[in-house]
Amino acid sequence: MAAFSFNKLVIFGVGLIGGSLARALRERAGLAGRVVGVGRSVRSVERALELGVIDEAAALGDDIALAQALQCADIVLIAAPVAQTGPLLARIAPFLDARTIVTDAGSTKSDVVESARQALGARIEQFVPGHPIAGRESSGVDAALPELYVDRNVVLCPMPENAPDNVERIASMWRATGACVREMSETQHDRVFASVSHLPHVLSFALVDQILATPDAELKFSFAAGGFRDFTRIAASSPEMWRDICLANRAALLAELDDYTAVLARFRAAIDASDGAALEAAFARSRVARKEWQERGGIKPSGDAVAK
Amino acid sequence: MAAFSFNKLVIFGVGLIGGSLARALRERAGLAGRVVGVGRSVRSVERALELGVIDEAAALGDDIALAQALQCADIVLIAAPVAQTGPLLARIAPFLDARTIVTDAGSTKSDVVESARQALGARIEQFVPGHPIAGRESSGVDAALPELYVDRNVVLCPMPENAPDNVERIASMWRATGACVREMSETQHDRVFASVSHLPHVLSFALVDQILATPDAELKFSFAAGGFRDFTRIAASSPEMWRDICLANRAALLAELDDYTAVLARFRAAIDASDGAALEAAFARSRVARKEWQERGGIKPSGDAVAK
Repeated sequence: MAAFSFNKLVIFGVGLIGGSLARALRERAGLAGRVVGVGRSVRSVERALELGVIDEAAALGDDIALAQALQCADIVLIAAPVAQTGPLLARIAPFLDARTIVTDAGSTKSDVVESARQALGARIEQFVPGHPIAGRESSGVDAALPELYVDRNVVLCPMPENAPDNVERIASMWRATGACVREMSETQHDRVFASVSHLPHVLSFALVDQILATPDAELKFSFAAGGFRDFTRIAASSPEMWRDICLANRAALLAELDDYTAVLARFRAAIDASDGAALEAAFARSRVARKEWQERGGIKPSGDAVAK
Repeated sequence: MAAFSFNKLVIFGVGLIGGSLARALRERAGLAGRVVGVGRSVRSVERALELGVIDEAAALGDDIALAQALQCADIVLIAAPVAQTGPLLARIAPFLDARTIVTDAGSTKSDVVESARQALGARIEQFVPGHPIAGRESSGVDAALPELYVDRNVVLCPMPENAPDNVERIASMWRATGACVREMSETQHDRVFASVSHLPHVLSFALVDQILATPDAELKFSFAAGGFRDFTRIAASSPEMWRDICLANRAALLAELDDYTAVLARFRAAIDASDGAALEAAFARSRVARKEWQERGGIKPSGDAVAK
């Protein structure tokens, strides 16, 4: 496992995710390479410059600045909403050095791979799809932390076209932040996250939506307690981000939703039949699994609660 | 609002709920009345005696001890699983003084009222149904706290047969613990709690159940993060307790489940149609409502996280 170093890292979207990577590589790993931040406008990355998270800022719309930013870049990270990944890659493609490795931080991967293939064409071999599993309730570069990725999973979904060395280089970058790098196919990634992340978000939004649609919503909210609080914490997540994830991971999410609906129908039948034994058995299995998950380490909070 | 005092309080089931009431009345309100704990056997209430939470212990099966325990009691609290409320009231009925007020702490109310009517007959006027909305992750008398009810809601569901003075007496007892007493019908109670408590528990158990049934459950759990952690915390709740609640509140819970399934079907259709605007609008409404709920005070944790 080679130690990681870089001369120039270019980050598209210097918010929590991109900003934390830059801070981790500088402050945690002590690396001295140049970090360039690119935003829609120079103003949108000015705060990152002010905070010293990046060394240089460039505007996406400025061809000359963009070309300069990408010149001799070792690594490009796309840390933008998944729906923007395709357009961003298409914008970058004409200015991309042949030796630059591009990676991303999107929450879904099949759609990203598809749009990357369209945007990059033959240069798809330069793109290593990735997904760091980390977040905070607060967002933006002011929330960026050098320790955000410590003991977190980062998933890479290498493609047949990727040179193994390029995949290893992106893996070693993430390991330098303290993360644990794991590989899987983009299909497997999307199925796993549809199940443990995207579906629970939809279910949580749906519960609040259901209550809101009833005439005694206020009364219900006034009696909501700890179970409701935890179950619906993720219903306060970003509507735009979760709209995009639902659309980007549509197929896998629909499959999980249908499967979940079938489980609910089974529970419903047991309640309807007053089948206490079936309910208790199912609840007991879930309880054991949930407790074991927690005991195996569950998920360690970093800073404040993780929002993903 | 008359100050509360009592000469003799009898608690059936001296665990977290009953024990915290006793401790609150003594330690928080500084009241000096006698507290008698009744358990299946004297041994099961010995720990409460040891801790000084009660003054006297009696065994449910012992007619003479039970008659003595109930003699001249001002108030009887049934703090046992809802399924046991009917049998307990039937057991108590023959020994009940005409001036004793009986109340309970069950999580469901329509079924409790029905079984109380059967068990108490004409003495139903002595029974004031109640539900303190408080809990901790730990249970048993060792977890009892004098502050458990401070700023918590206690719901009373007065019946037409209750004398207003008796209802007020139970209300003043709970207010002495620091709780906020609210009244509603048992039907309304069961609908509200089916919505904000019972349904989320079933939904949370169902998600873990769904994952467990898949061949890659271990892989999925290994990538579960903060959203999963919070969403499924209540899936570690007591299977017996939640089996009983599901059965006791069957009708209201089935109605909520069906309503929820309809909301999910609506969300599914929007995802299937890639209707981003509909998804974003629904998510945004939920987010605003969830944030407002939190800002209005949400629910204050007491000691450790509230489990209900």
